Amino acid sequence: MTIELNSPLDMHLHLRDKEMLKVVAPLTSESFAGALVMPNLVPPVDTMDDLLAYKERILTATKGDTFKPYMTLFFRDSYDYDFLKSFGDELTAIKLYPAGITTNSEGGVSGFDIDKLSPALEAMSKLGIPLCIHGETNGFVMDREAEFIPIYEKLANAFPRLKIIMEHITTKESVAALDKHENLYATITLHHLLITLDDVAGGLLRPHLFCKPIAKRPIDRDALLEVALNAHPKVMFGSDSAPHSKEAKESCGCAAGVFSAPVALAALAELFDKHDKLENLQKFVSDNARLIYGIMPPEKKIVLEKTPMKVPSKYGNVIPMFAGETLSWSIKEII
Amino acid sequence: MTIELNSPLDMHLHLRDKEMLKVVAPLTSESFAGALVMPNLVPPVDTMDDLLAYKERILTATKGDTFKPYMTLFFRDSYDYDFLKSFGDELTAIKLYPAGITTNSEGGVSGFDIDKLSPALEAMSKLGIPLCIHGETNGFVMDREAEFIPIYEKLANAFPRLKIIMEHITTKESVAALDKHENLYATITLHHLLITLDDVAGGLLRPHLFCKPIAKRPIDRDALLEVALNAHPKVMFGSDSAPHSKEAKESCGCAAGVFSAPVALAALAELFDKHDKLENLQKFVSDNARLIYGIMPPEKKIVLEKTPMKVPSKYGNVIPMFAGETLSWSIKEII
Repeated sequence: MTIELNSPLDMHLHLRDKEMLKVVAPLTSESFAGALVMPNLVPPVDTMDDLLAYKERILTATKGDTFKPYMTLFFRDSYDYDFLKSFGDELTAIKLYPAGITTNSEGGVSGFDIDKLSPALEAMSKLGIPLCIHGETNGFVMDREAEFIPIYEKLANAFPRLKIIMEHITTKESVAALDKHENLYATITLHHLLITLDDVAGGLLRPHLFCKPIAKRPIDRDALLEVALNAHPKVMFGSDSAPHSKEAKESCGCAAGVFSAPVALAALAELFDKHDKLENLQKFVSDNARLIYGIMPPEKKIVLEKTPMKVPSKYGNVIPMFAGETLSWSIKEII
Repeated sequence: MTIELNSPLDMHLHLRDKEMLKVVAPLTSESFAGALVMPNLVPPVDTMDDLLAYKERILTATKGDTFKPYMTLFFRDSYDYDFLKSFGDELTAIKLYPAGITTNSEGGVSGFDIDKLSPALEAMSKLGIPLCIHGETNGFVMDREAEFIPIYEKLANAFPRLKIIMEHITTKESVAALDKHENLYATITLHHLLITLDDVAGGLLRPHLFCKPIAKRPIDRDALLEVALNAHPKVMFGSDSAPHSKEAKESCGCAAGVFSAPVALAALAELFDKHDKLENLQKFVSDNARLIYGIMPPEKKIVLEKTPMKVPSKYGNVIPMFAGETLSWSIKEII
């Protein structure tokens, strides 16, 4: 059995920088036609120079693959219309982090004062630039995302022409919010479609499955599966693939992030096949994102087939999801 | 400021065996007058010979300290009255593990069929041997303990003369069950009085705070604090101090357990002092247990004072709770 995917897109990706960028970028650019690249470097990407230079480093690292990095800025409430307009097509979206919520988010937003956010968000509305949000409060770890929903709703109501992407959603509450507000959309990761907190901490503790937002309950995973497998038009695949060194993961204070980029397409094919929903995979990994973002990725065909693939135990010094395990689907051909 | 504790007891302790026993036993026997020693060795302690031999190894490891190891058997439904009676004073309690729930619990109970359990539990009732239970189901990790409450209640009703100790409780539901059944009691650990899941997985992942049952919500910790700080007569201190090597904790599949024995008394004094409840500490760490178990530990006085103590970063190859941190209380004198 095979399936052909046209120009798959990863709409939430961490490529990091320097040596890590060189290791991980080709693992996405090989099999994806494009990816929305997160701006949370140290320091974050918040100027034209930074953005263009980072894009160049990414293109160098992807070694001539047919691959388009869709670039993002780290949200600042000081951004204005002229500044954002000057980016033209170089800027695809802006990522907003509540302060201190995840890796390299220290400079993020700490209040959600509409008046203060208004100049930047009105400019984005006018320019058609989507706002991607890591939606978590500083509350109890299992409640943070659900507690953030009122903020999503406040923003959605205050800026009705702004496309707001709820990034890497993990709860039934976020799924429910999708249908309540026309301008709310969402990305969903591979790992949140597969795991719950039980997989992270129910048996032995598995640091390589530890991520932000943390995996939630079975009922939450089921809600995510429902919209992903049926390719709900407001959801897109975004891996949130977030590499850290083996040492940073297996240590006294393990960094958050699952490195899923190299296995994403095969694992998604396995998952959609298992649920008899292969026919919806094209929409989930590409078509929905094209419509939501209004983008036209480069042409690239990925042929996947139901042939087992053993996942490497490491890429460089990064442990991937499914390290050493066997997936039932694999990439057969890239055209 | 000082406080004098008479014969403190740790009513739930893992001393392990071999080299680990030699490292950890003195760290308890120095400052405690006695401890209830868990039987989950590999293989578990379930015969007279095993129990007596283990007790001897413990006494050897405690190097002549004034310290009484209260020994336990690993529950088997095949135990009968004559077998249990033959232990006399050598046996203090029996520990029941649901199968596969925690470290070395593979041979535990997998159903809770009253008829099947009846011979052993009736014998224990007659002999006045308390049953200690690790009360978790195989459900979702945050729900396992609350889901086990109906089993506690079924056993409490079916064996009204059996003292049942709900071990290392972590939820408000378990606290509530204490007052519903005359024959239900509980131990509470140091770490569950201090941490929630936020401390384990809310920021960076902290494997040294990963334990079974997993730390729960702030509302659960508050319920535990309420009964511990007020020395509710049915609760006792049981550290569940559970050493693993540094490598077993900081790895791809981290073992469950917090090693708190060497810091337990100082940290408890700090906690009770912070809440202005120092006057209740004697009951929580000794008197309640003496009454519930009907035991008379050896005489030993521990004088604690409000003087800072820096916690070592390691004991042997085991990382303690508060490694490298400073506690505001310390042990001044042991008489």
